[in-house]
Amino acid sequence: MQKGEAAKELCTMLGGDMVSTDAGLIARHCQDWHGDITSSAIALLRPRSTEDVSRAVRACAKLGLGVVPQGGRSGLALGAVPDAPESQVVLSLERMDRVRSLSAQDFTAVVEAGVVLESFKEEVAEAGLYFPLALGAQGTCQIGGNVSTNAGGVNVLRYGMTRELVLGLEVVLPDGRVLDRLSRLRKDNRGIDLKQLFIGAEGVLGIVTAVSFKLMPAPDQVSTALLALDSLEGAIELYRLARRQCCDLMSAFEFLPAEAFTLAREGIPDLSLPLEPAHRAYALVELSGSGLVDIEALLSQFLELAMEEGLVRDGVVAQSKAQARNIWLVREGMNEGQARRGKHLRTDLSVPLSELAAFVAEAEAAVGEALPGAVCVSYGHVGDGNVHLNVLPDPEGMEALDQQIFRAKTVLNGVLDRYDGSISAEHGVGRLKKADFAARASSVQHDLLGRIKRAIDPNLTMNPGCLIDLES
Amino acid sequence: MQKGEAAKELCTMLGGDMVSTDAGLIARHCQDWHGDITSSAIALLRPRSTEDVSRAVRACAKLGLGVVPQGGRSGLALGAVPDAPESQVVLSLERMDRVRSLSAQDFTAVVEAGVVLESFKEEVAEAGLYFPLALGAQGTCQIGGNVSTNAGGVNVLRYGMTRELVLGLEVVLPDGRVLDRLSRLRKDNRGIDLKQLFIGAEGVLGIVTAVSFKLMPAPDQVSTALLALDSLEGAIELYRLARRQCCDLMSAFEFLPAEAFTLAREGIPDLSLPLEPAHRAYALVELSGSGLVDIEALLSQFLELAMEEGLVRDGVVAQSKAQARNIWLVREGMNEGQARRGKHLRTDLSVPLSELAAFVAEAEAAVGEALPGAVCVSYGHVGDGNVHLNVLPDPEGMEALDQQIFRAKTVLNGVLDRYDGSISAEHGVGRLKKADFAARASSVQHDLLGRIKRAIDPNLTMNPGCLIDLES
Repeated sequence: MQKGEAAKELCTMLGGDMVSTDAGLIARHCQDWHGDITSSAIALLRPRSTEDVSRAVRACAKLGLGVVPQGGRSGLALGAVPDAPESQVVLSLERMDRVRSLSAQDFTAVVEAGVVLESFKEEVAEAGLYFPLALGAQGTCQIGGNVSTNAGGVNVLRYGMTRELVLGLEVVLPDGRVLDRLSRLRKDNRGIDLKQLFIGAEGVLGIVTAVSFKLMPAPDQVSTALLALDSLEGAIELYRLARRQCCDLMSAFEFLPAEAFTLAREGIPDLSLPLEPAHRAYALVELSGSGLVDIEALLSQFLELAMEEGLVRDGVVAQSKAQARNIWLVREGMNEGQARRGKHLRTDLSVPLSELAAFVAEAEAAVGEALPGAVCVSYGHVGDGNVHLNVLPDPEGMEALDQQIFRAKTVLNGVLDRYDGSISAEHGVGRLKKADFAARASSVQHDLLGRIKRAIDPNLTMNPGCLIDLES
Repeated sequence: MQKGEAAKELCTMLGGDMVSTDAGLIARHCQDWHGDITSSAIALLRPRSTEDVSRAVRACAKLGLGVVPQGGRSGLALGAVPDAPESQVVLSLERMDRVRSLSAQDFTAVVEAGVVLESFKEEVAEAGLYFPLALGAQGTCQIGGNVSTNAGGVNVLRYGMTRELVLGLEVVLPDGRVLDRLSRLRKDNRGIDLKQLFIGAEGVLGIVTAVSFKLMPAPDQVSTALLALDSLEGAIELYRLARRQCCDLMSAFEFLPAEAFTLAREGIPDLSLPLEPAHRAYALVELSGSGLVDIEALLSQFLELAMEEGLVRDGVVAQSKAQARNIWLVREGMNEGQARRGKHLRTDLSVPLSELAAFVAEAEAAVGEALPGAVCVSYGHVGDGNVHLNVLPDPEGMEALDQQIFRAKTVLNGVLDRYDGSISAEHGVGRLKKADFAARASSVQHDLLGRIKRAIDPNLTMNPGCLIDLES
């Protein structure tokens, strides 16, 4: 079938409200934050209900079209960007944007896939509760995407990945049937836990349309510090100390490199720097809690101890929400600053905690050798062994930027393989890392993935091209 | 093939060290803590290594035998008890009992399936760390069984079910291949998370041979209190208060009924009662932590607040480890006391927290109406909405015990269905609850389970008869 014909057919079957063929609109829906790809699709489908999604999926199955489910398009791995414009439609969940229920009595909420994370967090906060998922993209990303990518973020060390927050799912399967498991139960051990299959599956097994989540008591006390350290090794030692001394009350522990302030200023020129920019490394530590625990006292006792042990050179503790926000802006501005330096390699790697410092040193040295003019920027979630080791290529270099980026990636992955690390600690595989993922998967792993995919999506119509390639 | 022939064949293929046909030994391996069933098997296989397990599974596949994987046999749902003695072998993991590695630097351990939970906890404690899974059966149950049943226990409200503690698995698949994913990474988002399939799958998809776990800092401060309350409603209100006021430092919150002390004394005759046995309900509250947090002060401030709010009638705070142990003995003795009353219905139900009290009241009333002489004993993990609503049948009743138990179960499940609860919050489905599970699974759920089972175990040889029945 021709592209135009298929679009027309979809309009007839699903109605003009659901189906858009507006070229500009489709173009906007054919990219993510990775940004380097522009693509296209037969149509953009925007269902308003689970029933709509089911109808859409059935229609596409009938027409033999691939369906690319899509949230806020803040992904970094092209998981929601179509790669076969002649045979794929984009299905955006953005119109399914209702919080269906929220219970302060049960500490639970049921929320549709298209709800923007930040607005969900706000609604939860209004009810005196807390949803801990916290990402740079939270003003844009949507709940369905968070679940389908098993999103991580800065609070994982305390609250786990998105997976650990999910109590139940509603999923439209590749044949249009609905798996309705929006459980509000905190404990349910009946048989194989089907929802686990769809969490982090990047839409290749079905479309998450709604989610039930656990919620936490709102942390009414939050204390944030930015500390100057000697090195990443020092940050890891400090993390271990904090893990024991502050127990389960630590909600973030981020490592920032020496270049953090420079990059943050490039990203946010009027940023006021919380510390002298003269140190080799920094750690952003956040403790939080509610009720009778005294978070401020805990942080100050911890810092005293850390000073005594010689782990901290200098530091500042936020005295207000505005000051805490300013500290976090260093972290966020650093991302923005890297973006302003132009096209670069963004990675999202993990190794065991005890090998993090050695890995970063070896990887940065290897990149330095291969690309002498490039700049490595390593930062991340120390407690999770998760480092964003980004490489800013040399704009004056002999090689084109894309070539430098490809070479940097190859070098990094080579070092990472020796550490038995992960090429994707949180961003997912998508289309961007599919080949690198396949090259590292064992034959057993690959076979099992294929079996599961075929068992649930025998016609291979759900998000084709993402995550794994199978022959139909 | 005859049973004797098959056993002989296995001996030839696998050697006498691995294969036992000793009738007494086999009989001991053909029951679990549910206890009411005696069964048999062709042989007992006791592999010493992953390679052994793989060889055993291949041999059984060749002979067309079903394999029933088995841990410490402390299950309560007959998940590890063969049900077709002529065509099944029991494969016990008990000889795979090594802790392969333990890293205090990484807060991780890799442990084989046959390690007894308690001895693993002890080994972890010696390294200054903590493995939070805590069950009544911990002196008997094994790690592989904990993972295959996704075991719960008293610390779930803080640390999650076993699933949330697993970083990676090694699994022997139904065709003998090994899925080797013993990751020590805390964050790894590469593709569909295959390990999730095997956690809680009760051995129907493969045999878990080793597990990598996250560990926690050892809680060097633990404070335990037993509180006298007015009702289950009061306990739930108290839990909500504790959740906010004690933040993430609460490690257990158990509800005990009025009969707790009577039953505990029947179970442990010389038990010294921590409180006057004159109250309508009790809560066992435990806070714990390490380092700079002051757990004792937190508990006493919390209790003051709870008293002020009129939620607590009386209470005792353990002043020593021995006193804390004595408080926990009330909980454990209660189980023992029920066992001494003879055959009874043990359940393991969950509903949303806000409906827990109403559910228990309605269910107890319904049982009382159907079986006037029976005694209901309801206790459990309040924070998880998980209640063990047990029914002790009337020994003088008109109906036989088994009939009373069956009727009580039917009545309870009927009430539970109106609350959209789970018939198995933690014990699993096994063979015992298979029919009740099937009756409550939607056709979509049933279809998906079947597809997954067939995709991974096409010959249906892994733990046949457990969890789901499919036609071969």
